[in-house]
Amino acid sequence: MRGFPPRGCDMAGLPNASYSITLRLHLDPADAGAIGRVTSAIGHDDGAVVAVEVVETTGERQVVDVTANARDDEHAASVQAAVDALDGVHVHHVGDRTFLLHLKGKLEVTPTVPLRTRDDLSMAYTPGVARVCRAIADHPEDARRWTIKGNTVAIVSDGSAVLGLGDIGPEAALPVMEGKAALFKRFAGIDAWPVCIDATTVDDIVRIVEAIAPTYGGINLEDISAPRCFEVERRLEASLDIPVFHDDQHGTAIVVLAALLNALRLVDKPIEEVTVAMSGAGAAGVAVAQLLLHEGVKDVVVADSRGILGPSRNGLEGSKAWLAEHANHSGRDGTLKDALAGADVFVGVSAPDLLEPEDLEVMADDAIVFPLANPDPEVDPTGAARYAAVVATGRSDYPNQINNVLAFPGVFRGALDGRAHRITEEMKVAAAHALAAVIPPAELSAASIIPGALDERVAPAVAGAVEAVAAADASR
Amino acid sequence: MRGFPPRGCDMAGLPNASYSITLRLHLDPADAGAIGRVTSAIGHDDGAVVAVEVVETTGERQVVDVTANARDDEHAASVQAAVDALDGVHVHHVGDRTFLLHLKGKLEVTPTVPLRTRDDLSMAYTPGVARVCRAIADHPEDARRWTIKGNTVAIVSDGSAVLGLGDIGPEAALPVMEGKAALFKRFAGIDAWPVCIDATTVDDIVRIVEAIAPTYGGINLEDISAPRCFEVERRLEASLDIPVFHDDQHGTAIVVLAALLNALRLVDKPIEEVTVAMSGAGAAGVAVAQLLLHEGVKDVVVADSRGILGPSRNGLEGSKAWLAEHANHSGRDGTLKDALAGADVFVGVSAPDLLEPEDLEVMADDAIVFPLANPDPEVDPTGAARYAAVVATGRSDYPNQINNVLAFPGVFRGALDGRAHRITEEMKVAAAHALAAVIPPAELSAASIIPGALDERVAPAVAGAVEAVAAADASR
Repeated sequence: MRGFPPRGCDMAGLPNASYSITLRLHLDPADAGAIGRVTSAIGHDDGAVVAVEVVETTGERQVVDVTANARDDEHAASVQAAVDALDGVHVHHVGDRTFLLHLKGKLEVTPTVPLRTRDDLSMAYTPGVARVCRAIADHPEDARRWTIKGNTVAIVSDGSAVLGLGDIGPEAALPVMEGKAALFKRFAGIDAWPVCIDATTVDDIVRIVEAIAPTYGGINLEDISAPRCFEVERRLEASLDIPVFHDDQHGTAIVVLAALLNALRLVDKPIEEVTVAMSGAGAAGVAVAQLLLHEGVKDVVVADSRGILGPSRNGLEGSKAWLAEHANHSGRDGTLKDALAGADVFVGVSAPDLLEPEDLEVMADDAIVFPLANPDPEVDPTGAARYAAVVATGRSDYPNQINNVLAFPGVFRGALDGRAHRITEEMKVAAAHALAAVIPPAELSAASIIPGALDERVAPAVAGAVEAVAAADASR
Repeated sequence: MRGFPPRGCDMAGLPNASYSITLRLHLDPADAGAIGRVTSAIGHDDGAVVAVEVVETTGERQVVDVTANARDDEHAASVQAAVDALDGVHVHHVGDRTFLLHLKGKLEVTPTVPLRTRDDLSMAYTPGVARVCRAIADHPEDARRWTIKGNTVAIVSDGSAVLGLGDIGPEAALPVMEGKAALFKRFAGIDAWPVCIDATTVDDIVRIVEAIAPTYGGINLEDISAPRCFEVERRLEASLDIPVFHDDQHGTAIVVLAALLNALRLVDKPIEEVTVAMSGAGAAGVAVAQLLLHEGVKDVVVADSRGILGPSRNGLEGSKAWLAEHANHSGRDGTLKDALAGADVFVGVSAPDLLEPEDLEVMADDAIVFPLANPDPEVDPTGAARYAAVVATGRSDYPNQINNVLAFPGVFRGALDGRAHRITEEMKVAAAHALAAVIPPAELSAASIIPGALDERVAPAVAGAVEAVAAADASR
């Protein structure tokens, strides 16, 4: 597995930009070795120096900014202490680059029309705007033409299942939704807006989203906990005439399917013949299983924290009952490890460190292993590579990152441009195939089954595929 | 009244930019007089040519764009027909500048952070964002610091009372809310977002605004019909800890008070001694009356469409009962014309053409007349000027435009910067005084009692005054 970090290194904690601090240091200008001692101290503490900048040198002191990546908060504090302990080095101030980036938020609402003259005002606002209002009142479908609706998506969250943080509420969820909106604009030119709602019941969430829907051309549900998310999505799809898409479910499913399509090409197995073992029956797990089954996978055996969802599990309800009956075709029972026996593919969308690499030995030859729990995968990916032909994770510091940003911008771009009223299974499948096809056959390798998160080719490819399905649906 | 259009001209229908068309014409290049015949024909039809641009000239034809302002849709069609009827002139295409301006809406959501590298992604989105989320979950008050909340206002409307158009619904209201958001950014740097809601009952509107509030630092209610707007505002002020401001009420009241303060300076009457006659007891009327009373006006006699809200009106409820009891200190009864007798000030926030200029003759000397119904005032303002010392309207094509844009950007800027939890009466009064003071005594005249809508001095002055009150409140 080219590109993987050396074995034995602490996987879950490589220094990275998300824990990056800038130390402003005061040094003695006559002490020529001071900067070297600082960078050495950081290196000895396993921090990674990414920048050194001399800000000012006077006869009395030298001011130097040293930026270093750490593993986590604790490590950042330790790096700082290591520097502070050096003779002749004074830590004047510590800046946290991530927090600095988030200061005052990450979005701005900008007018696209001039507002310089009285004429501008009279066209953009009163009295001219009244004519535009009347035109929409007469022809409501023209709202997409004369307003932001046609290019605008609501990112709706109640903050109940944010990243790995759980139920942190709508205010604390806002930084994620802002980031997501920024990605929508960056990759697909879509104007997305965070709608962080203070609501808990399904009825309440549904009612609120219905009420705010007129402004939007699409609804991206985000970080809403299972099983509420399933009913929220189902009811909104039924009541609204704009696409509703729970990204944690379908975005993940699309990228997993795309990665799997390319991985299967590498190991030369037809998808109709593979069996999949999965860990996790939450929002992502259910959607991944459904999309894989829709694409023709033979058998999907899903385990939750209590074992396989199979014939001998009593009292299953809702989506878990559905998975036991309709996904587990082989009728398997037992533990997650039992599910792995003979499986061609493992997909984990659950919790860290559930498996040892050796547990994968029972899988079929040329196994494909996607432990996607983030930041700590279900199984150590470097260890897993000893037993698998292809490994993908949710992390950016390993090859093959399964990142939803590969799906949602293009999916909504295509849906908006195709004026779709919903995101169909066909659109998701088309999106996955288009995403997989971004990697040309010649570039396909075990370390490159899926494009990188910043690959500019992705969103247009996905959008085109989704729009084509929407156009075909519309002409039916 | 300098600056007023000549008497006898059709007031309600001067050609203006909000009815502006661009005619793309094909002419014979050998016909040197063609453009002159076109502009003459437009002028004869009372259209106003604002631009002529030769787009292309070949041996066979000359392509010319002629832009002209009209009075209304009908007049625009007539102007077009007049040009089309000319020999040797072919109207190839007609563009409507106002609609063109509104195409695809008037707002954009722009990231304020870079998203170019993997490091950028890992700080703005996962995994770095998780630390910011956790910080807000631990200290909810820090949401203003690390998210857009501190600079973001929701413009909430159910579309039930949009401009003079009535209940046109949330989609058709969107162009107004977008325009308003653009003004918030233009004048106060505030990121405002349209929240057009599909809701009708007070309970529903209140619940929805409460639910979406976490994202916002303030709520601007807009174009919600009376009397529902009063209860919506009252209940939201009680339940939310961010400022709630119904602009149709309080924005209007602030600008009216500012204009009145300057007008009274001109005629040298102390506000405590003046009596006010008003037409209109809707959202704006109630708020104007309340703010004037708060400022010390002696008597405010309000008439609705059935006459004065006074002792002999039976069955009055809510705000109308309040006005009859607490504003009409002189205990007057009768018609709007009876209210005018001896009044120093007339304020109309009601309907077009309720009064003849001669009806104003019964007012006190040096009368102040603000007929604010838009686009057609309660009384012809040019005629009114024969009987009044000062006249102001809601229109941009007369002097002294009472325009809410003079208030809301600064009010919210001040409230956000002052971290106010509500907009108090003191803040409104401070805003009005600051707005009035933008016109220096030396510049004060009957044609200049209030700054123009584009005056850059206004928002900072209003914001400073509101923030000062907020700071004083916070330190109590």
